[in-house]
Amino acid sequence: MTMRDVQIDLTERPSLENAVFIEGLPGVGNVGKLAADHLIEVLGATKFATITSKYFPPQVLVLGDGTIRLVNNELYFWKAKEPGQKDLIILIGDYQGLTADGQYVLVESILDLLVELGVTMIYTLGGYGTGKMLEKPRVLGAATNRDLVKDLKKKGVVFRKNEPGGGIVGASGLFLGLGLRRGVEGVCLMGETSGYLVDPKSAQSVLEILSDILSVKVDFTDLESRAEQMDKLAQQLRDLERAAEGPSDEDLRYIG
Amino acid sequence: MTMRDVQIDLTERPSLENAVFIEGLPGVGNVGKLAADHLIEVLGATKFATITSKYFPPQVLVLGDGTIRLVNNELYFWKAKEPGQKDLIILIGDYQGLTADGQYVLVESILDLLVELGVTMIYTLGGYGTGKMLEKPRVLGAATNRDLVKDLKKKGVVFRKNEPGGGIVGASGLFLGLGLRRGVEGVCLMGETSGYLVDPKSAQSVLEILSDILSVKVDFTDLESRAEQMDKLAQQLRDLERAAEGPSDEDLRYIG
Amino acid sequence: MTMRDVQIDLTERPSLENAVFIEGLPGVGNVGKLAADHLIEVLGATKFATITSKYFPPQVLVLGDGTIRLVNNELYFWKAKEPGQKDLIILIGDYQGLTADGQYVLVESILDLLVELGVTMIYTLGGYGTGKMLEKPRVLGAATNRDLVKDLKKKGVVFRKNEPGGGIVGASGLFLGLGLRRGVEGVCLMGETSGYLVDPKSAQSVLEILSDILSVKVDFTDLESRAEQMDKLAQQLRDLERAAEGPSDEDLRYIG
Amino acid sequence: MTMRDVQIDLTERPSLENAVFIEGLPGVGNVGKLAADHLIEVLGATKFATITSKYFPPQVLVLGDGTIRLVNNELYFWKAKEPGQKDLIILIGDYQGLTADGQYVLVESILDLLVELGVTMIYTLGGYGTGKMLEKPRVLGAATNRDLVKDLKKKGVVFRKNEPGGGIVGASGLFLGLGLRRGVEGVCLMGETSGYLVDPKSAQSVLEILSDILSVKVDFTDLESRAEQMDKLAQQLRDLERAAEGPSDEDLRYIG
Repeated sequence: MTMRDVQIDLTERPSLENAVFIEGLPGVGNVGKLAADHLIEVLGATKFATITSKYFPPQVLVLGDGTIRLVNNELYFWKAKEPGQKDLIILIGDYQGLTADGQYVLVESILDLLVELGVTMIYTLGGYGTGKMLEKPRVLGAATNRDLVKDLKKKGVVFRKNEPGGGIVGASGLFLGLGLRRGVEGVCLMGETSGYLVDPKSAQSVLEILSDILSVKVDFTDLESRAEQMDKLAQQLRDLERAAEGPSDEDLRYIG
Repeated sequence: MTMRDVQIDLTERPSLENAVFIEGLPGVGNVGKLAADHLIEVLGATKFATITSKYFPPQVLVLGDGTIRLVNNELYFWKAKEPGQKDLIILIGDYQGLTADGQYVLVESILDLLVELGVTMIYTLGGYGTGKMLEKPRVLGAATNRDLVKDLKKKGVVFRKNEPGGGIVGASGLFLGLGLRRGVEGVCLMGETSGYLVDPKSAQSVLEILSDILSVKVDFTDLESRAEQMDKLAQQLRDLERAAEGPSDEDLRYIG
Repeated sequence: MTMRDVQIDLTERPSLENAVFIEGLPGVGNVGKLAADHLIEVLGATKFATITSKYFPPQVLVLGDGTIRLVNNELYFWKAKEPGQKDLIILIGDYQGLTADGQYVLVESILDLLVELGVTMIYTLGGYGTGKMLEKPRVLGAATNRDLVKDLKKKGVVFRKNEPGGGIVGASGLFLGLGLRRGVEGVCLMGETSGYLVDPKSAQSVLEILSDILSVKVDFTDLESRAEQMDKLAQQLRDLERAAEGPSDEDLRYIG
Repeated sequence: MTMRDVQIDLTERPSLENAVFIEGLPGVGNVGKLAADHLIEVLGATKFATITSKYFPPQVLVLGDGTIRLVNNELYFWKAKEPGQKDLIILIGDYQGLTADGQYVLVESILDLLVELGVTMIYTLGGYGTGKMLEKPRVLGAATNRDLVKDLKKKGVVFRKNEPGGGIVGASGLFLGLGLRRGVEGVCLMGETSGYLVDPKSAQSVLEILSDILSVKVDFTDLESRAEQMDKLAQQLRDLERAAEGPSDEDLRYIG
């Protein structure tokens, strides 16, 4: 069967109530992707839909065993286990749409399905590039109404006037903007990140706040060990750079 | 409901007679946008339509209170108060269409509505980049027929052969060209501007002529104070530049 | 009425027999455009169709009298006056389509009309960039069948193996290729040109051969005087360049 | 008749059984194209379909005899002659689609026809750029299932973890990914190549493995002589480069 412009293939149609949708596609520092991938893993969420599209790159990925897979986006669901929790739908993927209009069409097509499945709240996850390495990245927020802003501030989310100045570009922005057109409220959580490296530390900051909001327990061991690896890598890069530059005045101060 | 390629959502359908349409989207020096934004404010015009489209960037803006808004264009109306005035529809927005064909589709879609609402005359507002700062920017014109050209000259609008040489690109040009195809006459007013900075002084020049044509009184206090701020900013930029260069021969002439 | 993707507005529908179609849109050295513009003028051909499209730039041109015109393509016709002549349809315009797929759609839309009007032969006119100024530019050819190639050689058209190496790009190529799909034969005539300047001399070379083929008399006075102007301009550019460089070894040989 | 977005014109509809499809469009080192062109020639396969599309460049090619041809893709078939052989369909062409979405639409349109014609297996051929000249290029593989991977390893195809790291881009990837969506299994064979020059040697490596799999005998004389020509060309390039550089330390070692 010929693929549609946006083809959503469901392996099952989960029965959910007042579900919360979480978007974690690739972006600045891959913060949203890391956070959503990790959430799926620790919750043991179930894949139920594969999204392929002519708006993605014309590309297959070669997996470790030599088999190929068309680049795609995937939807997972997780049913609430305890009081205070919500059913979840989580979106992850290899790419966002390549073109501006492709981004609109993709997000609208996915929203069509989400509304059918009863989604009543959206969380989009991303990174906020600061240009510098941060020991303790903060989480910036944006939301579709002021009550949500108030609630998020209580959870430690930072709101700074005129940030992000350029608004929120891509799927993290469009799911909120186009969701609101359909009456679905939402929040964007952006972890501060240098913007130069994949940033598991920032992803953890985002996920700490999200898991608090959603009342789900998340083990961060994996993300922490990935963050340590990235720290080592960053240190090696700094050492290499310093070696190439020769001793600086600052270094000499401690030698003499 | 899924968004159309160009989605125009009306909060009300104003009843207007022989309405005049004014376009003020972003462009060179943001002259048209500043002028139209100011006109809406001083007239107290009423917003009645929001335009969203896949031809705009895939982006939401974050407002001062932490809430988001999908990038859009907006239509306002204002009903004539005195004899000699006309009902007005004013278009402002965050962006023009991103692609050439998107620009055509957006302008055609908006014209469909304008014709329904009885628009019989179009004014498009823009900037004309000269590459230099001007104390008293002039207003260049173009129109859909020679009688309009004659009328505009009497109002102080400048027509110079072969200017603008590259024609008028974007919404300011298309509304005239595509409007004319439907039998709606129109005028483009272009304020001279350096092209380097947002230019409230040029916007005021344009608005002085437009308000004269439309027989509406416009208070310019706001634009004037913004122009003063821009003048100070431009002066600071020049000072910084000079400081960086050191004293020039020209400076020394006055010292010695 | 909303504009179609390619909108062809006819002021009249000429009644023609076995008409010959001539394409002269902008391209290398504007050779094809200059030739077709000149042919329309000297024949006194009649405009009968205006083509506007979202595949053209979103732009209006400002004419000498201050009025505007949407960028377009135009069709002219000319009825045979003497035995041996053919009815002609000539295409000129401001631009070719901006995108690759836009070029296909534009050419197909125009071919739809041409076939309706009974066109049985196509001549496309263009320039062939050689990178150097030529006193007597030759005319290279390509055609849809070998008999045409043979005929053209007799008329002085040059066929060189592997030239043009990159094939023929744009409307001059597509009208032949897509015309042939509909059973309409055709020829491309390419005047050699430096590629740096608009080239009336090359346009004259092309038109000399085309007018011979079509048995129409063409006065070249206008093109010749434009060619002289371009020669002067080119000489001035060379003088300026030389002055900037200072005397070269070659110059000194003649001084000493 | 107006051309469709992807126009497939059949001169005949071959009656095939469990046919194998082979793709060899232009790409890195033109390895796939050289291999498929050669296979068609040595097998004497029959052309049965021409594919033209607005997703190709707007261009005609000028052939040796001065006639033109619209850029296209072509399908050939070959019927099995001996037990152990399969009916074949081979795709070659001048270009792949210009845009990402054009690539998807082209591959889907061709797959529609292939499925109708009973294709049950796909081989896509391409090059894998290594950045250096190789005396004996290896053939890397990827496949739609693990059994195929196992079979290919036995035939000498190399599978290396994380190669190609960027996946497989273009038609060679999409035919596998989109074919699999329709239940058609497939394999990609990628010959190592420098990526700087057209590489008949790499094409031969790919074709040696493919002809073994397909149980067809392939004479390589032509490819070998082309490879020798390319070797000479590469040697000349190296000599020119060395001459320009002057004697290097390495050269002097052998002189003294």
